[in-house]
Amino acid sequence: MATAATDLATDFNTLCEALARQARTAARHLAQASAIQKNRWLLACAEILQQRQQDILAANEKDVRAAAAQGLTAATIDRLTLNPQRLAALADSLRQIAALPDPVGEIREVTQRPNGLSVFKVGVPLGVIFFIYESRPNVTVDAAALCVKSGNAVILRGGSEAFHTNTLFHELLSAQLAHHGLPPHGVQLVPTTAREAVGTLLRMKEWIDLVIPRGGKSLIQRVSSEATMPVLKHFDGVCHVYVDAAADLQMAEHIVINAKCQRPATCNAAECLLVHRSIAAVFLPQIGKRLLSEGVELRGCPETCQLIPAAKAATTEDYRTEYLDWILSVKVVSHLDEAIDHIHTFGSHHTDAIITNDMRTAREFARRVDSAAVMINASTRFHDGYEFGLGAEIGISTDRFHARGPCGLRELTTYKYIVEGCGHIRE
Amino acid sequence: MATAATDLATDFNTLCEALARQARTAARHLAQASAIQKNRWLLACAEILQQRQQDILAANEKDVRAAAAQGLTAATIDRLTLNPQRLAALADSLRQIAALPDPVGEIREVTQRPNGLSVFKVGVPLGVIFFIYESRPNVTVDAAALCVKSGNAVILRGGSEAFHTNTLFHELLSAQLAHHGLPPHGVQLVPTTAREAVGTLLRMKEWIDLVIPRGGKSLIQRVSSEATMPVLKHFDGVCHVYVDAAADLQMAEHIVINAKCQRPATCNAAECLLVHRSIAAVFLPQIGKRLLSEGVELRGCPETCQLIPAAKAATTEDYRTEYLDWILSVKVVSHLDEAIDHIHTFGSHHTDAIITNDMRTAREFARRVDSAAVMINASTRFHDGYEFGLGAEIGISTDRFHARGPCGLRELTTYKYIVEGCGHIRE
Repeated sequence: MATAATDLATDFNTLCEALARQARTAARHLAQASAIQKNRWLLACAEILQQRQQDILAANEKDVRAAAAQGLTAATIDRLTLNPQRLAALADSLRQIAALPDPVGEIREVTQRPNGLSVFKVGVPLGVIFFIYESRPNVTVDAAALCVKSGNAVILRGGSEAFHTNTLFHELLSAQLAHHGLPPHGVQLVPTTAREAVGTLLRMKEWIDLVIPRGGKSLIQRVSSEATMPVLKHFDGVCHVYVDAAADLQMAEHIVINAKCQRPATCNAAECLLVHRSIAAVFLPQIGKRLLSEGVELRGCPETCQLIPAAKAATTEDYRTEYLDWILSVKVVSHLDEAIDHIHTFGSHHTDAIITNDMRTAREFARRVDSAAVMINASTRFHDGYEFGLGAEIGISTDRFHARGPCGLRELTTYKYIVEGCGHIRE
Repeated sequence: MATAATDLATDFNTLCEALARQARTAARHLAQASAIQKNRWLLACAEILQQRQQDILAANEKDVRAAAAQGLTAATIDRLTLNPQRLAALADSLRQIAALPDPVGEIREVTQRPNGLSVFKVGVPLGVIFFIYESRPNVTVDAAALCVKSGNAVILRGGSEAFHTNTLFHELLSAQLAHHGLPPHGVQLVPTTAREAVGTLLRMKEWIDLVIPRGGKSLIQRVSSEATMPVLKHFDGVCHVYVDAAADLQMAEHIVINAKCQRPATCNAAECLLVHRSIAAVFLPQIGKRLLSEGVELRGCPETCQLIPAAKAATTEDYRTEYLDWILSVKVVSHLDEAIDHIHTFGSHHTDAIITNDMRTAREFARRVDSAAVMINASTRFHDGYEFGLGAEIGISTDRFHARGPCGLRELTTYKYIVEGCGHIRE
């Protein structure tokens, strides 16, 4: 037994080291690829996805059948399933990424120093990215496209339930890299669903520059605690909408409904409604009725429960919870400070909104709420790379370090300084 | 024994948790401080350093005497020693930091989206910074000034040899925070020289957002392996100067001498000279003579040793070494590719220079050499926050993530998005 376990560990080590070393070599070449080369690859991949539609749907069908046999939920199976429309949308997203500016070689700042030195700050790739994600197979294609366009090599580790679809996607993308004079190991897929492979790769900081986990809480916690390289987390969104005393209540209603109900399972959906006491008696019955009619379960403070008799009593734990579901916690607050303190104590620094027509209150909320995105008179659902004008995104960072909020192409890069002189020496 | 050890651990835990919690609370307040408030504090600190000169020099004298008694090297004792001139320079650096723009609240980008939403990307502090450094006590004041000006709370851990000086500096800076309506725990000093305190703080990711180690290799390796929060490393500089076939040899000589000899103990000093074969027979004897006359020991490849008989044979280990001393490794290369490969294999991605008058070669070197700073016809010694126009710096990052190269005020911040709408909901 001990010997078998050791052999297995050695095997994973050999396998993962090969992946990581190949990625490192590929990254060195990809860093030098021109925007034209990378864009041709993206457009060719878009073509291939449509040409090979039948094969892709057949591979996906295997995954879907296995998922059904394993008794996965209908929602999970829906997320897993591809069809011609979804494939066409995926091909389109590749074309959109091709149309975005190349962040590599981009001159971000240039300074002429008093001594005549020119200092350029220039975008360069991060290097090798290990991307760990769950469920939806279209993420495989999107992530590979974003990493390659930003000059990085990527090691993909998708959910085991999408293994056949991901394997075919990877084959197609990698073959197209080779066809376009780019390193085929620029996109690699961990060729096993064994969990040990993840742990092994997380120890390889010599070859892997960054790990991005995107998925459930336990995945992210595991990756954060095991990784030896930097981690860019896409963690939970306990998002608030605060309806101020000076809010336009009609506007507040539209925004609360949108923030909660448009797509409750997303990280930027609202999980908690805070209402200023001075308008609670008018606003809460009105919004309560709308939310209940949409099928939202309400969990409120005692005042809320008085004003909305159908609401259940909220526990402290409720206020900390990212429901990702048709549930909303509700609390009446006395003033702006109490709203901000509540957000600070129970929130997750993801997305928080204020509805007010008072400019001073709006500015103070925006200044003091320490979240990746603060919305003034707009739905939390706008916290998204595409909506912010960044183009596609690999996720929304809940970290403070390196990148915060939507991570698009530029957030997948770093920079270097290029300094030009004509014989300058330091005195 | 076991009980005593447990008690000690509990004590460190209590002590460190208090430091970290106080820092977190202070950070929340400092994030809201205005530039005017922070600048007044900086100017007052500059005054106090001069008013309290005698007390500071007396505290420093204690450290210097203890260091001499412990038999520390003359170089270390010199770095440790303060005098009126050094104190005046330190006060000046505080005034310079006061004069720099505030990175907090700085609007870095603003986008008007097609739907009318305004998206602002705004600078905000990182939060709580744990800064670990060695030797020079002026770093205590500089680091505190940079952290507070960028809205962060800082926990300082200086070298034990500067303990008395650092303790007094901390007292003065913290008292001035209180005098200016700022949280006195914005600047804290770990009040013990015990190593256990560092390990304990490195586990407190709940309250500490970032650790910056600056010092020797073993310190940085220890911090990197123990830290549970992000680390911004200030690691070694194995810096190269490559003298190309098309170099102006007079210019090359000035730059090589400057890069090696101006301050050999700094991280951006040159450690290796690469010379194109076509000019080696002319250039190496000439530069060899100059370097030897400056007292530099040369360690070269066989060709170098033929052309400079006083040079010793270099080992592979030499090419990997950051001497920080009057030693230079030398290698003759056949072409640009070989120079770039050598830098890639043996360098540390810190600072690498090319001397050439050929534009194509210069551009290719700058594009392909993956270092925090690439110098064209300029000394490696220019890789410095002040020289790049960033104002003061807390160090030079050798990491790729978050910040690369000189870390000034802006690199001590992150950002948030503020989105303004007028009732926008997502369709």
